[in-house]
Amino acid sequence: MKHTKVIDLLNSTKTLHEVTAKGWVRTFRNNQFIALNDGSTINNIQCVVDFENTPEETLKRITTGAAVKVVGILQESQGKGQNVEIQVSKISILGDSNPEEYPIQPKKHSLEFLRENAHLRVRTNAFGAIMRVRSVLSFAVHNYFQEKGFVYVNTPIITGSDAEGAGEMFKVTALPFDKTPRTEEGTVNYKEDFFGKETNLTVSGQLEAETYAMALGQVYTFGPTFRAENSNTSRHLAEFWMIEPEVAFNDLDANMDLAEDFIQYVIKYVLEKCGDDLAFLEQRLLDEEKSKPQAERSEMSLLQKLNFVLENNFKRVSYTEAIDILRNSAPNKKGKFNYIIKEWGADLQSEHERYLVEKHFKCPVILFDYPANIKAFYMRLNDNTEPGKETVRAMDILFPGIGEIVGGSQREERYDVLVKKMHALGIEEEELWWYLDTRRFGSAVHSGFGLGFERLVLFVTGMTNIRDVIPFPRTPQNAEF
Amino acid sequence: MKHTKVIDLLNSTKTLHEVTAKGWVRTFRNNQFIALNDGSTINNIQCVVDFENTPEETLKRITTGAAVKVVGILQESQGKGQNVEIQVSKISILGDSNPEEYPIQPKKHSLEFLRENAHLRVRTNAFGAIMRVRSVLSFAVHNYFQEKGFVYVNTPIITGSDAEGAGEMFKVTALPFDKTPRTEEGTVNYKEDFFGKETNLTVSGQLEAETYAMALGQVYTFGPTFRAENSNTSRHLAEFWMIEPEVAFNDLDANMDLAEDFIQYVIKYVLEKCGDDLAFLEQRLLDEEKSKPQAERSEMSLLQKLNFVLENNFKRVSYTEAIDILRNSAPNKKGKFNYIIKEWGADLQSEHERYLVEKHFKCPVILFDYPANIKAFYMRLNDNTEPGKETVRAMDILFPGIGEIVGGSQREERYDVLVKKMHALGIEEEELWWYLDTRRFGSAVHSGFGLGFERLVLFVTGMTNIRDVIPFPRTPQNAEF
Repeated sequence: MKHTKVIDLLNSTKTLHEVTAKGWVRTFRNNQFIALNDGSTINNIQCVVDFENTPEETLKRITTGAAVKVVGILQESQGKGQNVEIQVSKISILGDSNPEEYPIQPKKHSLEFLRENAHLRVRTNAFGAIMRVRSVLSFAVHNYFQEKGFVYVNTPIITGSDAEGAGEMFKVTALPFDKTPRTEEGTVNYKEDFFGKETNLTVSGQLEAETYAMALGQVYTFGPTFRAENSNTSRHLAEFWMIEPEVAFNDLDANMDLAEDFIQYVIKYVLEKCGDDLAFLEQRLLDEEKSKPQAERSEMSLLQKLNFVLENNFKRVSYTEAIDILRNSAPNKKGKFNYIIKEWGADLQSEHERYLVEKHFKCPVILFDYPANIKAFYMRLNDNTEPGKETVRAMDILFPGIGEIVGGSQREERYDVLVKKMHALGIEEEELWWYLDTRRFGSAVHSGFGLGFERLVLFVTGMTNIRDVIPFPRTPQNAEF
Repeated sequence: MKHTKVIDLLNSTKTLHEVTAKGWVRTFRNNQFIALNDGSTINNIQCVVDFENTPEETLKRITTGAAVKVVGILQESQGKGQNVEIQVSKISILGDSNPEEYPIQPKKHSLEFLRENAHLRVRTNAFGAIMRVRSVLSFAVHNYFQEKGFVYVNTPIITGSDAEGAGEMFKVTALPFDKTPRTEEGTVNYKEDFFGKETNLTVSGQLEAETYAMALGQVYTFGPTFRAENSNTSRHLAEFWMIEPEVAFNDLDANMDLAEDFIQYVIKYVLEKCGDDLAFLEQRLLDEEKSKPQAERSEMSLLQKLNFVLENNFKRVSYTEAIDILRNSAPNKKGKFNYIIKEWGADLQSEHERYLVEKHFKCPVILFDYPANIKAFYMRLNDNTEPGKETVRAMDILFPGIGEIVGGSQREERYDVLVKKMHALGIEEEELWWYLDTRRFGSAVHSGFGLGFERLVLFVTGMTNIRDVIPFPRTPQNAEF
């Protein structure tokens, strides 16, 4: 008989028929009650074993982590906490789990310990919930863009262009470190490498996505991106997934509208689809915060925080306004910031962003119109700015507890201005000839942004370390699994 | 006034109101008729310019590839080929396109030429259609699995494990080729590399996906994978996207059912959603085949071929049966195969697969139960086979014109058998300790497969070179853009 998934058994309205279930034992109480989970939901189905008629040998093998098959009658439960349960008539052990050796016991494990067991941590309630939410959130991303007629574009992961400028890159090569082929001048002869040139892992698909937006109108990427930066923080990964929409004819205002609408849509989507998992994660966060001093606890619960984002517009603030607010803020005047904001032009640090979002505005904030010289070459220069106070049509979305979750801009669509900025930064035209072509042929206003997917998952799940929201995190000194 | 997308204008039932459209000029006939495209559909909207009241200077700038904004009245079209058109009252040139320089002229370009202009080729009808179909096909993949409750898993791209065994790998490193750090023995000191060990680009997410299937039940990956193989063919890419579902408690039969149902679902989905694009691609293929001798032309049109896959079950044939068929086939007896099939145990070449699919069965074929020694270590050894004739529960799906599109298997769930096979192949247990853990703790029957996404796109679009179905192909000696 084919087995039924636990989620379907729990949602079953029909009872008193024979069912088969397969899954893993979470707990086994009183030699009688198995909490069985198969990953289809955070909830377990209770399987009641007739221990008097089950061999002692079998009972002993019903241990946490063991895979079992049960056959029995689905019936209304007499116990609390569940509507239905299985009165087991037959149980088979599919795969044992030696309790002396199995690392995931029914007790609280530290997140550090679970990271070292990333192949098993998904068997816990918390990580099962996180990874189901992550999956639904991914699907919400595709749903949003596809419903709006965006075309999904797989921009290249291995890139021959090193002008993206978003950060340090990993080298991709098939050349050996020993007896590396050399040119006559003694430099590495990349002509003999697999691609006949130096190649790296992409830091962003934006430039390629722009070429597609200038043909298909509305496009988005959703793929892995990489940074070879030695940032050992709870917010950085060397390998992470990024979503990058790019839209022809959108100016910066339309870009901000899109980003805000998109974020609200995907959060609404998971709230609707992941009720059980989010309820668990909300309780998890409450429990965790109990050990913190009152002042450090969140003012809102997880669900309140998610609903708050849905119900409130993001506050749009120009960089210039933000600098004024920060300059006059208490922590700046009292010297409590590590970087004191003295004048217009300063780059904002995480502490400043957090102050604006968490203390001053107490809601998601979109900062826009940044000084040109602290932003990337491809951003649209604002018209009519004072010399020395040039700004670009950039925007960053800042979230409480997360910091920057979106970075975007209107792109410089004017060929001459773009080339001039590239020259100023020492970027060769030959390097980006294809990018420049979009401005040579049928150029138009266009805009886009990048959203770090793991930061969104962090926000939605209430987790605090980015290593806990991706299955197998890659960070400095860590590429296990 | 906000502009309306061309697809919405063309589907508009209301006429005689003012509309704004933005897009790129495909052609401009008689100084009067602009065919305007914005990528939202393969179809253009005709914009009728009042040339007598438009400055000569503007008319000259309405060239193929130019970006324009038109304002005018949407009205029923008097001409053939469209229901509605825009009677233009105002036209602005957003971005010029010098006809002397713009490579994409309204004429037939070779696919080779277009590959060299991969950043512009998507502005053609064919590549616009291909990339829209690719996008919808991606979404169909997610739809299928999410509807069935599968969890999307992002397995790592950078891997520290080199035991996947699916092919040659690219090295990922932050170490320099000059003054490479060395150990005392003189070997490269990977402890000083970014991850503190040797790392590569993944060739498959399967092993990691298995660890997730053994917790969440049903999972799938959909991400980029890599092969550093010097295969300069029309079927191979160094970077391609792969879909890998993995399901706990599925045996090989259930795995074949899943693969077949999945492929039929996604083809049905694009047939429903991409009618215009597929009709164009069908005509494109017909035109292309006109230049071929009758004998080399397809028996079926593109849409017939797609419908055929929907309406016919895939033929399931054991390896042993296939060898018998091949041994007795005319090309084998007449020595026309490059590799003559002599006996059981031979690895099948592309020519054999094509014979079975295209000549013998004339439908998609699933081959299963392959000899153990030509397949990967993780495949489930069949019970009760003769010594020397051991087979594994592997399956490959072969498609006409494409060859292998799916490779899958039931996985070896028995710890002892798996370890023995790893030893025989020289794979260290320490290397895959985490993979073995899935067999140590709660092991169970499970199965999965990998589908090369670009091969599916090839099949659906009727294209013949895999470099034409991914935006920026990566192949030996080529990583431009």
